[in-house]
Order: sequence, then C-alpha cells, then structure tokens
Amino acid sequence: MTVKTNYIKINTSRNFEIIDITSKINELIDINEGIISIFSKHSTSAIVVNENESGLLKDIEFSMDNLISDKFSYQHDRIDNNARSHLKSFLLSSSECLPVKNGKLDLGTWQSVFFVELDGPRHNRTVTLTMVGE
Amino acid sequence: MTVKTNYIKINTSRNFEIIDITSKINELIDINEGIISIFSKHSTSAIVVNENESGLLKDIEFSMDNLISDKFSYQHDRIDNNARSHLKSFLLSSSECLPVKNGKLDLGTWQSVFFVELDGPRHNRTVTLTMVGE
Amino acid sequence: MTVKTNYIKINTSRNFEIIDITSKINELIDINEGIISIFSKHSTSAIVVNENESGLLKDIEFSMDNLISDKFSYQHDRIDNNARSHLKSFLLSSSECLPVKNGKLDLGTWQSVFFVELDGPRHNRTVTLTMVGE
Repeated sequence: MTVKTNYIKINTSRNFEIIDITSKINELIDINEGIISIFSKHSTSAIVVNENESGLLKDIEFSMDNLISDKFSYQHDRIDNNARSHLKSFLLSSSECLPVKNGKLDLGTWQSVFFVELDGPRHNRTVTLTMVGE
Repeated sequence: MTVKTNYIKINTSRNFEIIDITSKINELIDINEGIISIFSKHSTSAIVVNENESGLLKDIEFSMDNLISDKFSYQHDRIDNNARSHLKSFLLSSSECLPVKNGKLDLGTWQSVFFVELDGPRHNRTVTLTMVGE
Repeated sequence: MTVKTNYIKINTSRNFEIIDITSKINELIDINEGIISIFSKHSTSAIVVNENESGLLKDIEFSMDNLISDKFSYQHDRIDNNARSHLKSFLLSSSECLPVKNGKLDLGTWQSVFFVELDGPRHNRTVTLTMVGE
C-alpha cells in the first residue's frame, strides 16, 4: 500500500470552460488499484464526471447560468466581481473520489472527468491528484 | 492495509427512480475501518446520501424536474434525447466518499445511500465500491 | 500506511449557518500525506469547500433559498417540517474527499472547508474525519 500525489496545471481561455482532464489524470496515475481524490485548488472552479459531447457542454453552461441568475445583486460582487462563479462552484463541488483499476481511472464508456472553469480565463489552475492503493 | 473492489448491479424500472443501496453496500464491505468510494459508472445517474422517506423521495424528483426545466430546448437532445438526465447528474455528482467502521458504512441514524436513476428504465447499471483500510 | 478516524462536534445557532471547520480539521489530522474523507452524519446539512468571505456566505444562503423555493408544498413537510432542508442537502452533498500534505489539508489560498447547517439550530452535529495515508 502506498500514497502518491501529483498535480495537473491548466490554463483556461474563456470565462466558462469545460476541460476534459481524463487522459492527463491517467498519465499521472501511479498505483495499480485503489482510489484517487481529484481536487481543484480554486473556489471558482469544479471537478465533475459526465459525458464529453459538445452539445451537452453548451447545455451545461446554459443551465448553470440559468440556475445562478444574473438578475440579482450579490454581496460578494462589492469585494470581487465574481459571486456567480463562486455560487456555481458551491453547487457543483471541488472534488471527486474515483476508482483506479489496472493503473487507470475505472470509468464507464461515456464518462470523462472535467475541470470546470467558472471564472476564467486564468493561468496555472491546479488540480491535485492523491492516490491511495497498491 | 488493503484495497478491495466490488460491484453492485442494478436494474431500474422507471425514468426517475431513487434506489436505496445501503444494505447492498454493507454486504460487500470487506474492510473493518477505512474509506469507501461509491461511484456510478453512468453519466445519467448519481450517488447521493439522504433520508429514505417516501414523501421526500417524491419531493426530490419534483425539485430536480423544476431545477432542470423542460421549457428549454437542449442541444444534446439532437444527438440523444436525454439532455435533462445528464444535466441533473451533473448537478448531483457521481461519487461519494464515506467512512467505514466495524465493517459497515458509518452513517447517521436518518441516512441512506441512494443510487439515483435519471434516465431509466435501464438494465445492468453498475456501481463500483472501492475500499481502502484495514 | 495507516487509517485514523476522528470526529468534530458542532452546535449551530441559526436555521441556515455556514461554519468554517478548516482549522478544527487540521488539528485532528493524524497522517502526513494521504486523503481525508470529511462526512456529515446528517441529511439536513452539507460539507462544501469555498471562500470564507462574509458577503459570499450571504449570497450562498440567498441562492439556496432561491433554488429550493418556498412557493411549493412538499410532501415531506407532512411528516417533518423540513423538506427544503433535505432538498438543499441533496443538492450540495454530504462528503468531500480532500488531499493531505505535511500533516494538513492541502487547500488553495482562498479555500475553506464548511459545515453547512440547513436545519438548525441543532446540538451535537457530527462530522466524521477518516484519513488514509502515511
């Protein structure tokens, strides 16, 4: 049994952007079987598992904009003009804990792991990968 | 310290269905103390912990339908007519990482672990249980 | 490699309350490197990671109230008058699985771990911390 930690660095180019990080995670997995915590170190982003289909990614952006409406005035915008980015992150969540098998993420056929940028563009977004297993 | 992986297979019978998998998970736990990743291998489903009360389960279905409205036209529906199922799954999340103690899930009195079917009925839905502990 | 379990007890004083438990978690971390499951044993609460800024915390309360509307009549309210508390908990989630490094949570600069009370005030809310690592 062992524990290993690795990091993914991401540069984003739009305000809302969904980036498939599945293959980058698989390259950095350093155990054969176990669990991996995938955690974004930013409170205006999220880690989510779903299907990588371009139409669906647009629907996700639309739905998040709809759920956290721009019709209201938010208090955090007095400090930093990104309250809606934080609120979307709060709804989605910053970590997933997934199975590793044969040295790779054990996902279903239609699943990808996404880093969701909610307040871009940004340089050097960091995702921490912590693996425990053998 | 050890790692063990097990699977639950589920057949669902309705489009939206909340299935309590707590006792199935407990039967398959193979460590005494540690953590368990409970992960659904499908991007139109979710894993959630809450109370198993029949009225509440109806409220959950109503709320999810309300949050992801059927008044909009979604792009993913041009490919596969289940955009709202994916969007609900995106909001909820596909994994939970829970404590194991004395060989069982260490839940509170009113908590159950649910597999949430968001695009049923389906055969052979798979939930992966990965345990790390001793 | 080892597994350690610890508990945080929390008394809340309002119906909706966001409590920063980052420093309490750090005091109870008993491994150097690994992962920690942070789990609330209650189905009317949540564990979320975000920024501890007082305006944002008000925006979060407003947004959750807005998402789970009080305009509807919920079935669970016939049993126990807290359907909206459960529904908010269902949306947010009861666990996070985070990285530990140098004996502490390895969070980003603007991140805190919150216990979110959704049905207070309550005595003796319990958060379970389960660590696996070395």
